[in-house]
Amino acid sequence: MNSTLEQRAINTIRFLSADAVQKANSGHPGLPMGTASIAYVLWARHMRYDPQDPAWPNRDRFVLSAGHGSMLLYSMLHLSGYALPLEELKRFRQWGSKTPGHPEYGETPGVETTTGPLGQGFATGVGMAMAAAHLAGVYNRADLPLVDHWIYGIVSDGDLMEGVASEAASLAGHLRLGRLIYFYDDNRISIDGSTDRSFSEDRAARFAAYNWQVLHVADGNDLAALDQAVAAAKADPRPALIVCRTHIGFGLPTKQDTADAHGSPPGVEELAGAKEKLGWPTEPAFFIPEDVKEHFLAAGKAGQAAHAAWKELLHRYQQKEPALAAQFERVLAGELPAEMDASLPVFPPDAKGMATRQSSGKVINALAPVFPEFIGGSADLTGSNKTDFAGMVAFTPETPQGRYVYYGVREHAMGAAMNGMALYGGVIPYGGTFLVFFDYVKPAVRLAALMSQRVIYVFTHDSIGLGEDGPTHQPIEHLAALRAIPNVTVIRPADANETAYAWKAALENKTGPTALALTRQALPTLDRSAYAPAEESLKGAYVLKDYGGEPQVILMASGSEVPIIMDAAEQLAGEGIAARVVSFPSWELFEKQPQAYRESVFPASIRARVAVEAAATFGWHRWIGSDGAVIGLDHFGASAPFEILYREFGITAERVVEAAKHSLG
Amino acid sequence: MNSTLEQRAINTIRFLSADAVQKANSGHPGLPMGTASIAYVLWARHMRYDPQDPAWPNRDRFVLSAGHGSMLLYSMLHLSGYALPLEELKRFRQWGSKTPGHPEYGETPGVETTTGPLGQGFATGVGMAMAAAHLAGVYNRADLPLVDHWIYGIVSDGDLMEGVASEAASLAGHLRLGRLIYFYDDNRISIDGSTDRSFSEDRAARFAAYNWQVLHVADGNDLAALDQAVAAAKADPRPALIVCRTHIGFGLPTKQDTADAHGSPPGVEELAGAKEKLGWPTEPAFFIPEDVKEHFLAAGKAGQAAHAAWKELLHRYQQKEPALAAQFERVLAGELPAEMDASLPVFPPDAKGMATRQSSGKVINALAPVFPEFIGGSADLTGSNKTDFAGMVAFTPETPQGRYVYYGVREHAMGAAMNGMALYGGVIPYGGTFLVFFDYVKPAVRLAALMSQRVIYVFTHDSIGLGEDGPTHQPIEHLAALRAIPNVTVIRPADANETAYAWKAALENKTGPTALALTRQALPTLDRSAYAPAEESLKGAYVLKDYGGEPQVILMASGSEVPIIMDAAEQLAGEGIAARVVSFPSWELFEKQPQAYRESVFPASIRARVAVEAAATFGWHRWIGSDGAVIGLDHFGASAPFEILYREFGITAERVVEAAKHSLG
Repeated sequence: MNSTLEQRAINTIRFLSADAVQKANSGHPGLPMGTASIAYVLWARHMRYDPQDPAWPNRDRFVLSAGHGSMLLYSMLHLSGYALPLEELKRFRQWGSKTPGHPEYGETPGVETTTGPLGQGFATGVGMAMAAAHLAGVYNRADLPLVDHWIYGIVSDGDLMEGVASEAASLAGHLRLGRLIYFYDDNRISIDGSTDRSFSEDRAARFAAYNWQVLHVADGNDLAALDQAVAAAKADPRPALIVCRTHIGFGLPTKQDTADAHGSPPGVEELAGAKEKLGWPTEPAFFIPEDVKEHFLAAGKAGQAAHAAWKELLHRYQQKEPALAAQFERVLAGELPAEMDASLPVFPPDAKGMATRQSSGKVINALAPVFPEFIGGSADLTGSNKTDFAGMVAFTPETPQGRYVYYGVREHAMGAAMNGMALYGGVIPYGGTFLVFFDYVKPAVRLAALMSQRVIYVFTHDSIGLGEDGPTHQPIEHLAALRAIPNVTVIRPADANETAYAWKAALENKTGPTALALTRQALPTLDRSAYAPAEESLKGAYVLKDYGGEPQVILMASGSEVPIIMDAAEQLAGEGIAARVVSFPSWELFEKQPQAYRESVFPASIRARVAVEAAATFGWHRWIGSDGAVIGLDHFGASAPFEILYREFGITAERVVEAAKHSLG
Repeated sequence: MNSTLEQRAINTIRFLSADAVQKANSGHPGLPMGTASIAYVLWARHMRYDPQDPAWPNRDRFVLSAGHGSMLLYSMLHLSGYALPLEELKRFRQWGSKTPGHPEYGETPGVETTTGPLGQGFATGVGMAMAAAHLAGVYNRADLPLVDHWIYGIVSDGDLMEGVASEAASLAGHLRLGRLIYFYDDNRISIDGSTDRSFSEDRAARFAAYNWQVLHVADGNDLAALDQAVAAAKADPRPALIVCRTHIGFGLPTKQDTADAHGSPPGVEELAGAKEKLGWPTEPAFFIPEDVKEHFLAAGKAGQAAHAAWKELLHRYQQKEPALAAQFERVLAGELPAEMDASLPVFPPDAKGMATRQSSGKVINALAPVFPEFIGGSADLTGSNKTDFAGMVAFTPETPQGRYVYYGVREHAMGAAMNGMALYGGVIPYGGTFLVFFDYVKPAVRLAALMSQRVIYVFTHDSIGLGEDGPTHQPIEHLAALRAIPNVTVIRPADANETAYAWKAALENKTGPTALALTRQALPTLDRSAYAPAEESLKGAYVLKDYGGEPQVILMASGSEVPIIMDAAEQLAGEGIAARVVSFPSWELFEKQPQAYRESVFPASIRARVAVEAAATFGWHRWIGSDGAVIGLDHFGASAPFEILYREFGITAERVVEAAKHSLG
């Protein structure tokens, strides 16, 4: 205990973390012990944060991309005065604690994003830096830098090996996101052993190739070198990767620098050995020297002062730019503009109609002027996804106020970056790709759902209706895969007006992502004087029309298959069979309706049912029960003009008629 | 027409391709027109192939990673004499043709892999090169180089932007796969316009950082430079990226070097303009000069001669190494070793039991000695996935005969590389990660299914049973997502002996991938004298036991939830309710059974049913009908010891009993 205050502070981080892992008998001691000095330099010397108000908009962000090292973050949050009592650290990884195994957004004050699946935190931080650059571009005025802070992170070997981090790094370099400063925990160990086994690339050269500034800290415990690196990073307009040579499980007598230090409790003896080695009292566990406690709390207090100064700045801003200030507060609160409903286009009936991707494009164009927080983009399919809008400006280093992101062919980074933007706040991100490439985005979609973030996916070319590009581009299982994820709302509108309401539902869904599944091919715009109003689609499923009196059979479909069941219902009516046609754009919206409404659409007494979707039948049995039928595609598609595919694969009114009769017995 | 034979040959490629796109009124003319010279140099000067036997094991492979340029490949295959008549080129992208929109493995002779989703071809080629290096390491003998060829590819900007290509490139450099030679079609245009919009990294420096040899061809039509680059690539032990400056839509008078040349027919006038510009007759379409035809066929004939020489070499090999030769032929034929069944371990009853990941590890260990074609690995979770085996040697540049791949934290590249290995043949790849990280592998799993490849995924930690790592690591929707994919067999065994049969089923499944879902936590090994034999699990679902006479209610579960329904059945029997317990490890295997068998397991007359799975309930309604219940998790998990999670989330025998009674009415 005769070391410096700084060293004691760093050892406090190490052993708070290791003690918690040991007590839980589960967790990852290696990273916190190896990177404690980095965390110290950040929290004590560089980061601006207000532990009393973790949501202060101009705070620095910290992303622990290597989320398995969660105890590092919990130690820092506790020490710097966040509402995370020591008791919670002692309940690490236990039911109901605020200290889950990986950092979970919303569970712990001060945790900026959920991390754990490697690479995601890296790419999410890129999104945060995009949002910060954008908001600074929109709102900052001379001498009034409302948005003026940094995004820090610790990233691991595993993060850098993941493709999503590569995509995001390339994008960040391209966009010159200079506010991004990542420490690379270069400990040369992964779970399978030495990184020599699988990871021999020149990481520094790779990041330089991405247009990053690459800095080196030869000893990850060298505080002066870490300090200097941060200063150099701040002085450079590029994103920075600070390559820090660290030692996993630093201090552990036999496990340091081995994979054994990564993901298991060190063991009582090994932990005691580490404490002895680093001059730390072996007892009590969770020991925090009084001066260390004060030291960290002082850092938090400095942040509070910075926050107070920022509030004054905001006040001056409000005086000078009242309209912008009001907008800033509205968008940060996540409130929608009052003009939204009035701006939604109403599409006139049209037998020829248009593709729902096209009506979606018209909705985007209508909303963009009244939605300054709308920030769109596409993974290099702008013209196909119809995600662009009139008069838009690209988001570039020169035009950070721009609201359109050319993500390149980087679906996964797009998804993760949108998470970062949504978490950051002040923007509502939407991004486009083909529905089949949801596969590439999936890990990020899951995190959006888990973190309850308002992210909107514009998934076009949503079936075999895409035609000639063939099976690699035709989604089959994707609607099922999306619907199976908790807290994802999937909407597949059947015409232009349902598409407008799909957008409304997506924008109003503040607690989770929404996936819009949109056609490539044209669909008729229904004449709503003859059918139920399109607004009913907000309920997820609704009776479009009962054909020929008291219904005997229910036909249900989503999107492009609704016209097919309408045709079938006509044919059935001609044969004296009364069919109900249900447009079913969203299972999730429907499930939220009261039981009485659901029963009114699908009365239990009508057991003859046919569901139609040009996709896997998987999951539809829930709606058709034991006696119904599903018409879909439980095989891959093919390359041909789409009308031929519908016919050859039997997604036809004739087959629906047949199935309806069969279901009626 | 007064140009050289070579130029005429190259223009033939350009205009065959463009004419086909124009005729189909759909497709991508830009790539074939821009890279025709590269294809020419490869097919006419470097590649060894036998158009009469596209499966010749020692042929050079060609991967068109930018699969949208499929007409380039079809033109080459037609011209060089594969069984792809001109008539098929005229039916490009039409129903039933051999020329689908993207190259589809199995549809067209000479197409080595399905490509289209960008990045996949790149990474699949890496897998092919791994298989080639491995088989060369195992089988080649002095003066008897059975496996001695190259893997070529054309990759695009889009490929290089995709994360999976980054992962695979890093892996290929690490493994020093010197037989890999990729041409980078550096045309500086992507769908959204100039690559300056989104892709400004230094690609050459990035690949050098991955330990690739990077070569430059300043003019993609400079045949001598292309030639020299290939020669230099062959002479270097590293994988090679040949950066070729090309022009998308080369020759198109107004569309060359624009995004308009990428994915739409050029138009009649524009196409005629290109023909005029390049000195080509505007009529007839699909024109092939006689001397060009002969020229390409001669190249194919040279390949036939090489094939004949190789057959002689094989003959000498058979004389000298009869056992190895027989093994070579067996593994290339994809036949399983005769010893497989006898080698499968039988696990004695054990109430404490073991995790199915552990029994899987024991199966791997039992099979590895008799399966020389088994090539395993893990995405840096070897100890957790239990994918390693005694005495194994790592696959490295120094030990290419090694059968274990340290993939690093690169799940996606692992999946795509396994596709490449399976396509290559001679090996059966399996690879491990956590089930939740199936999300990262998904795009490659879909391709394995689409291409009917025998790839085995060892997905461990298959539920909330993984415990403390929490929701980011606990699969919920993943079983549903896997089951929804056509042609993927998912098996979730309930005990050690079911696990052995799961492996047998996976190995015997020659026409598609198999995903094994395995527990982290221990499961009892059932005493099969009291229950149906474990071999029944090969049928996908089977009656483990009827508790208390003629069943009134069916309880069904997979994997770790089977012991829970067994417990519930006991309790129900105690209350005088007869329950049938069905172990249901695989929906897909069950669906393949005759209707009579399926009816015998789930008689239509028994409508009271309860399904239990610690996962999303999505899809189970198919098996429980209108009157049954599903107990599962339609929300994310949490971080806590797994027993607590099961209790708190209600995956308990008590709740099954309750649901069974409710279902009985």
